[in-house]
Amino acid sequence: MVSVGVIGASGYGGMELLRILQQHPQAEVTYVAGNHEAERTVADQWPFFRGYGSLRVEKYDAVRCAERCETVFVALPSGVSGAVAAELWRQGKQVIDLSGDLRLPSDLYEAWYDKPAVVGPALDSAVYGLTEWHRDDLQGARLVANPGCFASAILLSLLPVVRAELATPGAPILVDAKSGVSGAGRAAALDRQLGELADNFYAYRVGRHQHTPEVEHELSPTGDVRMLMTTQLLPIPRGIYATCYVPVAKSVTSSDVDHIMQTRYAADPFVHVLPSGHIPQLKHVRGTNDTVIGTYVDERTGTLQLFAALDNLQKGAAGQAVQNWNVMNGFAETTGLLTAALYP
Amino acid sequence: MVSVGVIGASGYGGMELLRILQQHPQAEVTYVAGNHEAERTVADQWPFFRGYGSLRVEKYDAVRCAERCETVFVALPSGVSGAVAAELWRQGKQVIDLSGDLRLPSDLYEAWYDKPAVVGPALDSAVYGLTEWHRDDLQGARLVANPGCFASAILLSLLPVVRAELATPGAPILVDAKSGVSGAGRAAALDRQLGELADNFYAYRVGRHQHTPEVEHELSPTGDVRMLMTTQLLPIPRGIYATCYVPVAKSVTSSDVDHIMQTRYAADPFVHVLPSGHIPQLKHVRGTNDTVIGTYVDERTGTLQLFAALDNLQKGAAGQAVQNWNVMNGFAETTGLLTAALYP
Amino acid sequence: MVSVGVIGASGYGGMELLRILQQHPQAEVTYVAGNHEAERTVADQWPFFRGYGSLRVEKYDAVRCAERCETVFVALPSGVSGAVAAELWRQGKQVIDLSGDLRLPSDLYEAWYDKPAVVGPALDSAVYGLTEWHRDDLQGARLVANPGCFASAILLSLLPVVRAELATPGAPILVDAKSGVSGAGRAAALDRQLGELADNFYAYRVGRHQHTPEVEHELSPTGDVRMLMTTQLLPIPRGIYATCYVPVAKSVTSSDVDHIMQTRYAADPFVHVLPSGHIPQLKHVRGTNDTVIGTYVDERTGTLQLFAALDNLQKGAAGQAVQNWNVMNGFAETTGLLTAALYP
Amino acid sequence: MVSVGVIGASGYGGMELLRILQQHPQAEVTYVAGNHEAERTVADQWPFFRGYGSLRVEKYDAVRCAERCETVFVALPSGVSGAVAAELWRQGKQVIDLSGDLRLPSDLYEAWYDKPAVVGPALDSAVYGLTEWHRDDLQGARLVANPGCFASAILLSLLPVVRAELATPGAPILVDAKSGVSGAGRAAALDRQLGELADNFYAYRVGRHQHTPEVEHELSPTGDVRMLMTTQLLPIPRGIYATCYVPVAKSVTSSDVDHIMQTRYAADPFVHVLPSGHIPQLKHVRGTNDTVIGTYVDERTGTLQLFAALDNLQKGAAGQAVQNWNVMNGFAETTGLLTAALYP
Repeated sequence: MVSVGVIGASGYGGMELLRILQQHPQAEVTYVAGNHEAERTVADQWPFFRGYGSLRVEKYDAVRCAERCETVFVALPSGVSGAVAAELWRQGKQVIDLSGDLRLPSDLYEAWYDKPAVVGPALDSAVYGLTEWHRDDLQGARLVANPGCFASAILLSLLPVVRAELATPGAPILVDAKSGVSGAGRAAALDRQLGELADNFYAYRVGRHQHTPEVEHELSPTGDVRMLMTTQLLPIPRGIYATCYVPVAKSVTSSDVDHIMQTRYAADPFVHVLPSGHIPQLKHVRGTNDTVIGTYVDERTGTLQLFAALDNLQKGAAGQAVQNWNVMNGFAETTGLLTAALYP
Repeated sequence: MVSVGVIGASGYGGMELLRILQQHPQAEVTYVAGNHEAERTVADQWPFFRGYGSLRVEKYDAVRCAERCETVFVALPSGVSGAVAAELWRQGKQVIDLSGDLRLPSDLYEAWYDKPAVVGPALDSAVYGLTEWHRDDLQGARLVANPGCFASAILLSLLPVVRAELATPGAPILVDAKSGVSGAGRAAALDRQLGELADNFYAYRVGRHQHTPEVEHELSPTGDVRMLMTTQLLPIPRGIYATCYVPVAKSVTSSDVDHIMQTRYAADPFVHVLPSGHIPQLKHVRGTNDTVIGTYVDERTGTLQLFAALDNLQKGAAGQAVQNWNVMNGFAETTGLLTAALYP
Repeated sequence: MVSVGVIGASGYGGMELLRILQQHPQAEVTYVAGNHEAERTVADQWPFFRGYGSLRVEKYDAVRCAERCETVFVALPSGVSGAVAAELWRQGKQVIDLSGDLRLPSDLYEAWYDKPAVVGPALDSAVYGLTEWHRDDLQGARLVANPGCFASAILLSLLPVVRAELATPGAPILVDAKSGVSGAGRAAALDRQLGELADNFYAYRVGRHQHTPEVEHELSPTGDVRMLMTTQLLPIPRGIYATCYVPVAKSVTSSDVDHIMQTRYAADPFVHVLPSGHIPQLKHVRGTNDTVIGTYVDERTGTLQLFAALDNLQKGAAGQAVQNWNVMNGFAETTGLLTAALYP
Repeated sequence: MVSVGVIGASGYGGMELLRILQQHPQAEVTYVAGNHEAERTVADQWPFFRGYGSLRVEKYDAVRCAERCETVFVALPSGVSGAVAAELWRQGKQVIDLSGDLRLPSDLYEAWYDKPAVVGPALDSAVYGLTEWHRDDLQGARLVANPGCFASAILLSLLPVVRAELATPGAPILVDAKSGVSGAGRAAALDRQLGELADNFYAYRVGRHQHTPEVEHELSPTGDVRMLMTTQLLPIPRGIYATCYVPVAKSVTSSDVDHIMQTRYAADPFVHVLPSGHIPQLKHVRGTNDTVIGTYVDERTGTLQLFAALDNLQKGAAGQAVQNWNVMNGFAETTGLLTAALYP
């Protein structure tokens, strides 16, 4: 058993960590920090966490956290989270940071986040935790930058076809992405009220979503892949659905794509590629760490379409964080993460 | 007062016609045909239609319909609707057909609908009822092919920029479109049950949605504009949200686009173009005949984005049908159609 | 045309007033006060209010309001609203107050609202605006206390059977009531976020909801009717559904009840009593000023059940306010209020 | 490992059994029967069931089922399920029937279900599987009648206070109950379409819901407790929320009730009683086998209120079925059933 801390338990990412870790046979949660409900027990706030007994949500205290935990998951807002993670890492903790603070070179970070970057050894040491593509680096890692929810869906879709050089060079890749509202956090805001959001749908942060450079940098560190990502809000609590449009040569066939995708993910327990022409449904991944991907080649326009569905709080945040933690420590990768979708 | 018939009142399009016509000062509904609830009165089924008194839903009978109505709105499924509409038109009625049957040249129809086309004088005479672009032809028209819901949103967005030759020639236009479930009709189906659809989102009819040729043909009858439209289902009853991606030259600016769009629709009461960079919300059009359009130029990728929101049962079906009827008869175009969105 | 002011336009009640008044042929809105979006125009915030042109939302100013309006609708929170309404009334304005401040004797108000009551001539002069039961007093009235949303649904159900002395004396009446979230207001709150409320349902203010004395006082000013009302939150924006349980003698039959209810409301345009055993649906009243009532007599337990559905922002607030205003001024009672439910 | 069959896997109850059993360390699912998707594999239909490999959904065949399974869960519609369960039991299988067919004396069954009852040894042998109240009988049982979803919520609330003789004799108990739509099954029906149900709420089967005699019979086999249950449909997929009103003497206090309820369920892992005055939320039990109960004593009217929340597919069906199976076989009662609610 490893003693584990969760920082940011008042947010949805932190709550989801508590949900997952409650069942994880290697984890004992020994420290929880949060805001809204600080100084109450986790069990008092949420009857489904009564297994946590007298464990309290505390205001974050770096000393107390370090005393009590070997591993710390940091799920604070960008601009705050990375510095907390870096400090805990310097003290020798094993740290997974769920924010965007340690994912990007500092120049890209500052350009897209409009905040000063965390710099120095922490940034240099952080492994980008897209598990299926960085498994080797994650083994034994001490500091992980857990990917963004949109970035996870998009990269799992695009990386195989970009690496296989299917995309027409120079032409932009377009991604039309949709997210449930929990991706925007749990702080009270008029925009996220049920009265405003129910029956609604709209695009936000058009042209400037901060996951754009994360995707582009991972697709091509040299900067020669351009992606336009449009993020839109679904009137539901959970889920990411990314529809990717990749310009391809007319000679590219659906069986080419099927072969590339199926082969790439054949051994990955949490990525499921549907047969060509089959389309994922968002509800099929709700509450799971799965990413389900569908493909379609439109010959009329020379476009390869990729559809990816994942749960933004699972594979898009806490689930992938635990998956990474499993890999970091040599636990079976699926430990604590196998569950069927909540359906209906 | 004009005597009006509604064929297909068991479906959502037909119900919406009854909602609108109930308030229309020039319309007296004298004949209603439908399936599910035939032989009951409209008022018995729906307390909010009690203003219709003893008007019953009947099984469709062509003779009775012709006897009782001067104008007929036909809102039956494609493959059935067009023939009914054509026959009523031959009998001298003024007819608005809400199906896809009279919108396309017969070869395109048969290729995309996989059904035999209605041919002959009816097809040749039908005016395509995208009101803002065919107002002259609609005045005095006797037979109108009312546009599809997706097609209306997409065409109102794309036509000004395509006509202004902003789109890069030869490059496909991509449209990522989302629809509330009422667009799929009212017949009982497992897929549309709340248990299946709530918290869900997915693409359907990928690569073969029948509104594709309707958009392409209207954008360019000579067939030199290619569009890939992806249709996706929102877990809400109403609304179309179309996100269009038009490849443009790097020299195209947001103020160019703003000028083109604002100028084009300045005099149109039901199309509202937001200032550049402002994004429409789906809920802002719910229950109205409005289309709200936003624009954004992404210089990083040379892409013009257009966002259009409309209510699929209003501007996407029954609302535009009544708008067309107003124009056909010389009534003020907004008659019976002015209402604020139901918000929240 | 009457010049009309709306105070509290940032809330849902105020917005609904603007929706209704925009179509009202006797109203010209000349003054709008609110908080969140003060100093922007109504049209800038909501494209569906673009008919209001350059009308701005202002911070409330009593002098300016009085200068510009003959009638004022005050839709501020309880504890604030009544005093504003009283002051405008003293200045000679015709005032409809949508809060709870002027509905109760001061002792009851202070006991249930836990705030100091508005007292003096304003309280004494205010007519309780349950239209169907106070039409005579409303004609020519200058100050109206518009009823609460729960109270409207419950009183319209219970008053006929209580006045007919069907309820077993001394036995409490139970009311299990449900409300959409807009009833709780539009201020940002964690509890009302879509992430928290979607798929949820729960009781709130158990045993102490402030509409309790409003109902009891109207049922019996002498205090000899006791009601236990339980209020619960539906995960939808709009609607009140009240299920009332009245203990009755075994001799009471469904046809007795049917006769009493049908007779009482035969002439009321906005109250619709279904045949015995038929049950109202909440969605049938959405966006309308209707109350639909169903009845059922359970002989096994000697219980009369009454089911009432209304839209909390229409008959439960702004709709009834305008209905009252019509009566106060001698306009046709339905002016500006006839619309079919938004369905689906 | 026990070989397990699931009959009725096309319905929501059967699907939920597959969800739970997939994680159950003692169960190996070896036979699955269903309708809609017969002859496809479970994994083909639902990517989240891909752990089931090549297991197919078959048309039910009694011989094949008996060959392959030691335990069978039968989740067919009432009127069909009981006979299938009885036959498998006669063949020596351990059987849990999730329908209403084996829960009631035959006269009550026929009066409320309007169908011929299953009679004979099977009916006599079936143990009523409300686990917390029949644990002794369940140990070693071979045939279990799994309780109804409403009945489970109501009985867990009422049994302690009825047994403690708190309810005023002769006065009816009222229960206002609400259910998510999955309780109505998965067959396609217009009523359950998202377009019809979203934003809706209404009562159904008023005065004649078939769980009424199940509750009354369990509360008092001699028939001297009368309950009026009103069932209403929530526009969400899952959940039961039962609000119970028990007439009590004025001398009954909240601490009396608290003591009775807390004591009764102190050792039960799946029943959680909140402190007096705290109210359960439906979303807190979603996806779990928990029942959360709140209590409130209203002194004004002499009414004890009990609020119970559970997931109709878990504690209301499949979860309790597995809980019973655990008890029947001497497994730890919580095996395969510990999970936190899916929140948000």
